Amino acid sequence: MKRLLFALGIAACSISASIAQTPTAPSPGEIVAAAPATDWTTIAASDLLVMDLVPGPRGPRRVVIQLMPVPISAGWVRNIRKLADAGWWDGTSINRVQDNYVVQWGDATEKKPLPDAMETMTEADYVSPAVAKALLDHMILQATRDNGHSAGKPEPSKPDMADAYAAGGAFLNGWPLAIGSVQQGNTWPVHCYGMVGVGRNLSPDTGSGAELYAVIGHAPRHLDRNIALVGRVIEGIEHLSSLLRGTGPLGFYEKEEERVPILSARIGTEIADLPTFEYLSTDSRSFATYADARANRRDPFFIRPAGGADICNIPVPMRRAVP
Amino acid sequence: MKRLLFALGIAACSISASIAQTPTAPSPGEIVAAAPATDWTTIAASDLLVMDLVPGPRGPRRVVIQLMPVPISAGWVRNIRKLADAGWWDGTSINRVQDNYVVQWGDATEKKPLPDAMETMTEADYVSPAVAKALLDHMILQATRDNGHSAGKPEPSKPDMADAYAAGGAFLNGWPLAIGSVQQGNTWPVHCYGMVGVGRNLSPDTGSGAELYAVIGHAPRHLDRNIALVGRVIEGIEHLSSLLRGTGPLGFYEKEEERVPILSARIGTEIADLPTFEYLSTDSRSFATYADARANRRDPFFIRPAGGADICNIPVPMRRAVP
Repeated sequence: MKRLLFALGIAACSISASIAQTPTAPSPGEIVAAAPATDWTTIAASDLLVMDLVPGPRGPRRVVIQLMPVPISAGWVRNIRKLADAGWWDGTSINRVQDNYVVQWGDATEKKPLPDAMETMTEADYVSPAVAKALLDHMILQATRDNGHSAGKPEPSKPDMADAYAAGGAFLNGWPLAIGSVQQGNTWPVHCYGMVGVGRNLSPDTGSGAELYAVIGHAPRHLDRNIALVGRVIEGIEHLSSLLRGTGPLGFYEKEEERVPILSARIGTEIADLPTFEYLSTDSRSFATYADARANRRDPFFIRPAGGADICNIPVPMRRAVP
Repeated sequence: MKRLLFALGIAACSISASIAQTPTAPSPGEIVAAAPATDWTTIAASDLLVMDLVPGPRGPRRVVIQLMPVPISAGWVRNIRKLADAGWWDGTSINRVQDNYVVQWGDATEKKPLPDAMETMTEADYVSPAVAKALLDHMILQATRDNGHSAGKPEPSKPDMADAYAAGGAFLNGWPLAIGSVQQGNTWPVHCYGMVGVGRNLSPDTGSGAELYAVIGHAPRHLDRNIALVGRVIEGIEHLSSLLRGTGPLGFYEKEEERVPILSARIGTEIADLPTFEYLSTDSRSFATYADARANRRDPFFIRPAGGADICNIPVPMRRAVP
């Protein structure tokens, strides 16, 4: 398996090649800042879930979540759209904050009726053969294109993304994905910092999407393929990660007054004056250069480039569109 | 290099072997709870740095840091002992909280004079040939012992710890270490959640130890071998990770009143009624079983064991000694 990935340049490591480049190259942040407008992709407002918490010590607390694109976790995402349109989360709360793990929100009473026509998904939906096929096509396309480039300016080195949880990793349309077995069409989104997933009870329950959590610690990759991931926080994660930790089992708040009320959660198209958000296209040259720089820091602060980076240490850059 | 590690069973993966075991095995937490007293190692009070912040919304905020054992980062740790004994941090503050990265503390004025006889370390001290030698001896010893066991009860499978930043990883005397090249005696501590490091300016400056930070996000492994790690938070990390994020560059607080004052920081032997802390011995069978369970969750909630875990997703269990 790894061999195929190497061939496709996904996990191939070339520290020497990297170090051989300019001794003091720009930092990842500088690379992102210098990326041409054409390397940024707009995120449709219809793909955003905007959650407003009660104001905090510094004022309004808005959390903007980008929902995953079809076909990844599509059934759960459709449920989430129904819940948002129904204003289902309005008046619910953040009920669990477990340090170095997750912040979880939903109906603390667990009695609030769900909207009609909610879909039920199965555990088979945790992985996506369709995405695996798309990813493989994309990887082959990119590998071919990279070879085409090699005549001109040298390509950024591909960071070593050796992964203890999968045969490899890759980015597709802005999302980090793990690859189990491409032959078996086995691909799944990964639990990186800021990713949003669907709370559930014991298997075979897969959750409806009404109970959600965001990762606020080291990537809990053991949850991959065991829980549905439906999106990621692209702005306002600090309003979740800096909340007081719950003192009950699993970090649940023990007192009702500790819960953080949710004023509303709506799809972006329903929000007035919502800024336009963009991500750095993961198939752009800027992203490749950024990923290489994340794996091989050459800006003045660093003395030893790592030569690699795990997929969750290459966060996809996000920004508000420049007006 | 990998081959040697495989031979030593550090990065060897055997998902099937793992899955073949009891279908619903205990959770990592249950394994730790069931570990015999003999599998726990006491942490000497003299190896603890106890930092008290001004009380927070819930009362006292104490952060307990375990200092790294000789010879790892020994010069910086000696400086930290001098600073603590001099009460140098008393009246200083937490000045930086960068989301998904670090909390940093020290003298915001950067004018406070340091104690006499502080040591100056070099970048060569970021790695430790002595530790690499000790680690290799330990690994060989353990591999031999494991073979000895194989006659009896089956050994827990060794989790796949494939690492994008090093040839492999291992635990020595309770600490997670990365292994670059064992031949070159190239071993270093890793930036996992909760690890404490030494702030510095541009290379070749390596910092004195007066300016410290703790990791509060996804392991920033690119800092490995670029900054000295001197310890880890073993209790009270939530008092750091739940602080309001700084709004200035790099997460520094912009207003003086945002800084969180440090009442005192002392070595554990100076603290009255300090509980005794213990870690689960990383060469114990309980730890091996726990690490296997972290990599291959078989408790009822999980449907797909990952087959591996990165070294920072196998946190070394800590507890207050049972009186």
